[in-house]
Amino acid sequence: MAEISRYPFRVEPQEVDFTLRATLSSLGGAVLNTAGVDAYGKGFGVDVLNADNHSWVLSRMALEIDLRPMQYTDYTIGTWISDYGRVLSTRNFTLTDAAGHEFGRAVTQWAMIDLTTRSAVDLSWVGREHQEAVVPVPPPTDKPRKIRAVTPTQHAEHRVVYSDIDFNRHVNTMRYIEMMLDMLPVEMLTREAPVRLDIHFLKECRFGQTLSIGCELHEHAALFEVSGDGQSVAVRAGIEWQEA
Amino acid sequence: MAEISRYPFRVEPQEVDFTLRATLSSLGGAVLNTAGVDAYGKGFGVDVLNADNHSWVLSRMALEIDLRPMQYTDYTIGTWISDYGRVLSTRNFTLTDAAGHEFGRAVTQWAMIDLTTRSAVDLSWVGREHQEAVVPVPPPTDKPRKIRAVTPTQHAEHRVVYSDIDFNRHVNTMRYIEMMLDMLPVEMLTREAPVRLDIHFLKECRFGQTLSIGCELHEHAALFEVSGDGQSVAVRAGIEWQEA
Repeated sequence: MAEISRYPFRVEPQEVDFTLRATLSSLGGAVLNTAGVDAYGKGFGVDVLNADNHSWVLSRMALEIDLRPMQYTDYTIGTWISDYGRVLSTRNFTLTDAAGHEFGRAVTQWAMIDLTTRSAVDLSWVGREHQEAVVPVPPPTDKPRKIRAVTPTQHAEHRVVYSDIDFNRHVNTMRYIEMMLDMLPVEMLTREAPVRLDIHFLKECRFGQTLSIGCELHEHAALFEVSGDGQSVAVRAGIEWQEA
Repeated sequence: MAEISRYPFRVEPQEVDFTLRATLSSLGGAVLNTAGVDAYGKGFGVDVLNADNHSWVLSRMALEIDLRPMQYTDYTIGTWISDYGRVLSTRNFTLTDAAGHEFGRAVTQWAMIDLTTRSAVDLSWVGREHQEAVVPVPPPTDKPRKIRAVTPTQHAEHRVVYSDIDFNRHVNTMRYIEMMLDMLPVEMLTREAPVRLDIHFLKECRFGQTLSIGCELHEHAALFEVSGDGQSVAVRAGIEWQEA
């Protein structure tokens, strides 16, 4: 039976903000990177899927960080798939420091798309073919929450450029998160309190589109929605810092 | 006598564009990261300097990439300091693939600043105290070229946000490079030809400023200049792809 796979990381100088702690987006980036590397190593990465004109697409993510580690801190990301449904597979993560203390965790849900139609395909076959990759350990926290209604109090616009897009030619997940967080007061972002981020992708945004980002700001939380070229909502997200 | 230090890297999924090759900015980021890690490991990193109210600041960089490596390619960055002047120290880099073939190189020049006055300090003492860190191997290519005059044919604006800034609270080098490259046609960025980038920092741009980026576009080259809040030029850069 499969076990949780563990990958070593270190907080690099380019990943910290002026508090010298890792940014949320760099930690989220490390989590998503681990997903790619683990799938690649186990034979169901994007490289293999592309040969069949398929790709993995992130549908939802929940990321919890209790304490942002300082520059040069060594840490480990553990990852495992806990289940394959017909439409979504669930991949989990824990972030632990050198002493084995868990300081963060994530739950992600992935769909498989057909690269021609860009729509989701039934992934039961992956569950059958890669049953041995499933680890019977439940997700380390609540699955990603759906954010249903956002009443923006602030707006920003962003034209999608080359450095925003990923191998799939759509906007990189961490860039969405950066765009959203960049609308918040810096004091909120650098406050040292446990934080949870939920993000939910409804459709893709692509190179050349102009994105509208709406933000509903609260004292220790914010909700966001992003749409491309005036179309319906493409991404919704929520972030919440624990009150002192 | 010191030797060239070598650090292992791999092109991670989040570092590639839709051609599945590492972006120039991710390779430049790896180079700068290596500078930080190497200085840290040798006892003259930003952590030690900060205790004396000093910091390293990148003054100029030349980066040459002959071939952008594909996703998951293992490579090595070698780095060494070839000299300390009174104002600038020169740190060099080579990028080599698993077979030992050099596919890129960089020459960087660093000043040391006083964090209160933000002005350069004499770094002869570093040269004396860390003489053993100097490796008598010349830079692997021409030192960074000064770009003197730019006649912009295109303009862009960018307000400096949280995700743009680094541990020094000023705009991250790779973000400048992304802002510039994002003004170029995608076909130019994804063309497979050797490329050289020169960048030259004249002053710092900081959180909350609005940057104007001017671009003088040629067929296989471009020149850039960036200024903050309508002040004098803060950064100049040039990029040139080799003609087929």
